[in-house]
Amino acid sequence: MGEANTLAEVGEFGLIERITSGLPTHSLVLLGPGDDGAVVAAPSGAVVISTDVLVEGRHFRRDWSTAVDIGRRAAAASLADIAAMGAVPTAVVVAFAAPADLPAAWALSCTAGLRAEVEAVGAALVGGDVTSADAVMITVTAIGDLEGRAAVVRSGAQIGDVVAVAGRLGWAAAGLAVLSRGFRSPKKLVDAHRAPQPPYAAGPLAAKQGATSMIDVSDGLIADARHIALASRAVLAIDSASLQVPDEIQSAASAYNLDPREWMLTGGDDHALLATFARGTQLPAGFTAIGSVVAPADKGPGVTVDGFFVTARGGHEHFRS
Amino acid sequence: MGEANTLAEVGEFGLIERITSGLPTHSLVLLGPGDDGAVVAAPSGAVVISTDVLVEGRHFRRDWSTAVDIGRRAAAASLADIAAMGAVPTAVVVAFAAPADLPAAWALSCTAGLRAEVEAVGAALVGGDVTSADAVMITVTAIGDLEGRAAVVRSGAQIGDVVAVAGRLGWAAAGLAVLSRGFRSPKKLVDAHRAPQPPYAAGPLAAKQGATSMIDVSDGLIADARHIALASRAVLAIDSASLQVPDEIQSAASAYNLDPREWMLTGGDDHALLATFARGTQLPAGFTAIGSVVAPADKGPGVTVDGFFVTARGGHEHFRS
Repeated sequence: MGEANTLAEVGEFGLIERITSGLPTHSLVLLGPGDDGAVVAAPSGAVVISTDVLVEGRHFRRDWSTAVDIGRRAAAASLADIAAMGAVPTAVVVAFAAPADLPAAWALSCTAGLRAEVEAVGAALVGGDVTSADAVMITVTAIGDLEGRAAVVRSGAQIGDVVAVAGRLGWAAAGLAVLSRGFRSPKKLVDAHRAPQPPYAAGPLAAKQGATSMIDVSDGLIADARHIALASRAVLAIDSASLQVPDEIQSAASAYNLDPREWMLTGGDDHALLATFARGTQLPAGFTAIGSVVAPADKGPGVTVDGFFVTARGGHEHFRS
Repeated sequence: MGEANTLAEVGEFGLIERITSGLPTHSLVLLGPGDDGAVVAAPSGAVVISTDVLVEGRHFRRDWSTAVDIGRRAAAASLADIAAMGAVPTAVVVAFAAPADLPAAWALSCTAGLRAEVEAVGAALVGGDVTSADAVMITVTAIGDLEGRAAVVRSGAQIGDVVAVAGRLGWAAAGLAVLSRGFRSPKKLVDAHRAPQPPYAAGPLAAKQGATSMIDVSDGLIADARHIALASRAVLAIDSASLQVPDEIQSAASAYNLDPREWMLTGGDDHALLATFARGTQLPAGFTAIGSVVAPADKGPGVTVDGFFVTARGGHEHFRS
């Protein structure tokens, strides 16, 4: 066999052994990988749980992103969901499916990226499953601890609340636009598509500050604002002028003759956190006010941008007058 | 569009809405599906977590199993892992990837089967993710509660312990052999391949009775006994005469001129529970003694069948003299 190069040569157990080697200890991990299940402490007597799957060709391309970035992104999708409930991620498990001829080094880099993202938020990789499939598919399930607080749900926004956002908007979409046009720079935008930088800590901070509702912005600001609006039977009124357009996004948009706020209003995958707070609340660090919660009018619950009701996912035809 | 027939027509949110409609309430589910994450009570202050993935063409074929059975089997794989730790499953999340042209009815039947298996053990489906992929892939992550007990791990078997098994052995393998030969009967065997019947309750029972080690038999009795043996640095000595061969398996083996104990010793996917108990322990209901834990000899830790050391996964060449 010579050098072990592919997953078929390394084997399921060999891969698992390499992925889990050198895992750091973690005070909440009572039993780590290697058994039928892991055991994770739930200090507050409850866990938040969320699962997300990334599929090659749908969510990522191996020629556009490094294995490390794809692993980070897979972890980020689930970790951001935990943060959006106001919880602190404690542990993740991963199901990794891949072709048998996938280079083992790719799989190891991907899981190393995943581990890096998980450990950066103070959580632990505690287990997983490895199987063969025609395409790479990574399912990450994360659990988290609410530290005794109530979960911040989508349905709690109240008329009069401030709408605020933490984290990036439009960066991943701008990066994807760059890559789709065959370019590899500006690097900061491309990197934002490859691996997001969710404001994980802002989730528990918002919960402590009494956020009335919160959501992970994975589909786009308007699309996810609508989830809160429908669940809360309210209108989230967004003021597009409040969105500070970063220079990088402004430059790329100008180069392609696009409105940069389109990316910021409709681009997903940055995993910003969108939340509502009672008026007068001091916004937690990282949050910027971008609008307010108002009573539904004749069109019912939904989202307005600069006063215009947005009826669909938020393509530019809907929020431009 | 006319009738909504495919996943593409029903859409991601439509599918999720149908999957989660009519979910029963559950005392441990503090927040069910529909938000960024679910919240599940962890009464004993810790959770057991395990994830398993089933891939079309690898683990199942849509022409060999019904959608309901595939859903049940996907759930069983993770639920049995929880039971094998001595825990009671409380909740599951599912990541469901499938081609856009998959009939929506298939996806709904599959998730209905999954829900049925989950709810039969008293647990709850609390969330998931739906995405498109070239093949059907179902990742189920289950969490469970230890009810204040320590987890039963693989490494606790002691020299002198009794080795015991609960649940079926060889049924799924026999069923797969039948299907592989183009037959659809005996139905009881075929059904066993399509959806296992793990002895979930035997897991917590074994834990209460002081089981020193335990594992879910998913790879085969010998293969999984080896996991305990290596983790416990012991030899699990199995007496094949103690394996009562069911009539159905005896008949099928005779028809194919095979040794039925081969299926029972090496067949996976029945999700029996293999455990060790201190000698003299009254075995919990459902468990049968099949051997004992002995000190390693010159070949080190591992598995013997009728005194012969089995060096690999357990093909018949190893345990036949």
